[in-house]
Amino acid sequence: MMNIDEYKQIVQNELEKYFDEQKKNSKYSSTIWEAMSYTTLLPGKKLRAIFCLETAKLLCGDYNLALPCACAIEMLHAQSLIHDDLPCMDNDDLRRGKPSNHKVYGEAMAVLAGDALISFGAQTIIEKTPKSVEIEKVLEVVKLYMHSAGALGIVAGQCADMEAEKNVKNVDYENLKYIHTYKTAKLFEFSILSGAILAGADIKTLDKLKEFANTFGLAFQAYDDILDVICTTEEMGKTVGKDEKEAKATYVSLFGLNDAKAKFNKLIAKSYDILKEIGLKSQIYNDILDKMFERVN
Amino acid sequence: MMNIDEYKQIVQNELEKYFDEQKKNSKYSSTIWEAMSYTTLLPGKKLRAIFCLETAKLLCGDYNLALPCACAIEMLHAQSLIHDDLPCMDNDDLRRGKPSNHKVYGEAMAVLAGDALISFGAQTIIEKTPKSVEIEKVLEVVKLYMHSAGALGIVAGQCADMEAEKNVKNVDYENLKYIHTYKTAKLFEFSILSGAILAGADIKTLDKLKEFANTFGLAFQAYDDILDVICTTEEMGKTVGKDEKEAKATYVSLFGLNDAKAKFNKLIAKSYDILKEIGLKSQIYNDILDKMFERVN
Repeated sequence: MMNIDEYKQIVQNELEKYFDEQKKNSKYSSTIWEAMSYTTLLPGKKLRAIFCLETAKLLCGDYNLALPCACAIEMLHAQSLIHDDLPCMDNDDLRRGKPSNHKVYGEAMAVLAGDALISFGAQTIIEKTPKSVEIEKVLEVVKLYMHSAGALGIVAGQCADMEAEKNVKNVDYENLKYIHTYKTAKLFEFSILSGAILAGADIKTLDKLKEFANTFGLAFQAYDDILDVICTTEEMGKTVGKDEKEAKATYVSLFGLNDAKAKFNKLIAKSYDILKEIGLKSQIYNDILDKMFERVN
Repeated sequence: MMNIDEYKQIVQNELEKYFDEQKKNSKYSSTIWEAMSYTTLLPGKKLRAIFCLETAKLLCGDYNLALPCACAIEMLHAQSLIHDDLPCMDNDDLRRGKPSNHKVYGEAMAVLAGDALISFGAQTIIEKTPKSVEIEKVLEVVKLYMHSAGALGIVAGQCADMEAEKNVKNVDYENLKYIHTYKTAKLFEFSILSGAILAGADIKTLDKLKEFANTFGLAFQAYDDILDVICTTEEMGKTVGKDEKEAKATYVSLFGLNDAKAKFNKLIAKSYDILKEIGLKSQIYNDILDKMFERVN
């Protein structure tokens, strides 16, 4: 059985391999690969990649067929962080305890690094997924990757978030859920579904996993909103307290800290329930849920 | 037989259709679709889309199977323009005679619109290419799209361009060709090859078309460098004279105007020759080459 740290190391090593291959061949443009790999390789939780690998392993016994896709997810996640941190977006100098991408490589290179990570992720899925996986599944996964990356995924969430900021007093729960679903849950959905699709899951399992991913995704965002209030910048490795300062709509701003915690607990409880319903027994899934629950309670 | 204006109109209509479909379904995030469609739909030459359609038509008689891909190319092209125009990049307020994307929607939305266009292009190829096209061909085209979009394509060119600016006096012809190949020729290569692949071209034809696309792409960039010196901002619909002001490496800065023109003429002559070699008789290809030749000479 794999544990979280083993998965993390496998993903980290594989990502390093992919970037090293490319750096060798980029005569006049090696800086872009440096900038792309910098944020992707920063030590992070790699939760999304781990969900992808563990789901594939649970459903077909082999996580390797999902390894390129798990790496692609981390690239896409890094892309969203790099562009999020830009001065014209959240203007954040710190990410995972290190200077954010544009502080190291400059704004222009950070814009380009984000752009290139979107396509390098999809390229990785297409070129590195083992040939034993049917091509229909690969194409389906690339399609979902595109949905998650763009204006039907992360970008929709960021856009809705920016729109909400203009009139934060009018943001109701439905609007907040939309923001969180697209900004956060959609990428967890992709992580879990892509692992399941590559492993050959049936429609019923996919539907239930989608429900889990969306519930977990909302819990994860509530968790993030709560930690932004109760943690220090040092503990988080990124600037905290910004939500309140920027008058962002969050679980805490909408419901207060106690009710936000109650809502978070409900979402975590529902996540456990869905796993029971599917009969999915995963130490990894449980460890992730347990740890989040402990930290907020 | 189709002419350039007919192709242009078909692409414009199809793009409008795709964006309209999405705008309807984007409750809290409709602004992103507005921003994405704004630059993509600005009246432009749509040369890249036309090459894609015409190549498919020449090789299999039907341009429709390449229409979603042709639209994707215009999305990708618009993406590169939007990010290029950003204040941290070229800082350009004017594009195709209109305010550039960030002047209308703000910098943050322009960053997001570019991001989302990369994925919407790939999504369009996957979801809209007629089911009659084999899935292997679709996946091959999506892979090449990703190469063109990222650090093996446009982004590599932009990165090399930025690196060159730091030390423009050391830029030699090989370096300049690298910049132009990646920044410009690769997208023409994708336009022509994708049309050919979808139409079922054989390897030999693909190789020759690739040679044409790369020669044409370099000619096109030389053309752009020359027009930047000999045209007015009004004629071009974008700010001109910037290359010299920013001390960019161009055909003109490297060889002077007369030798740049001579090099351009050679590339155009070579482009005609390759077409003859393949036996490709296309009024559209010829019209495009003729027009460029006339304007510079």
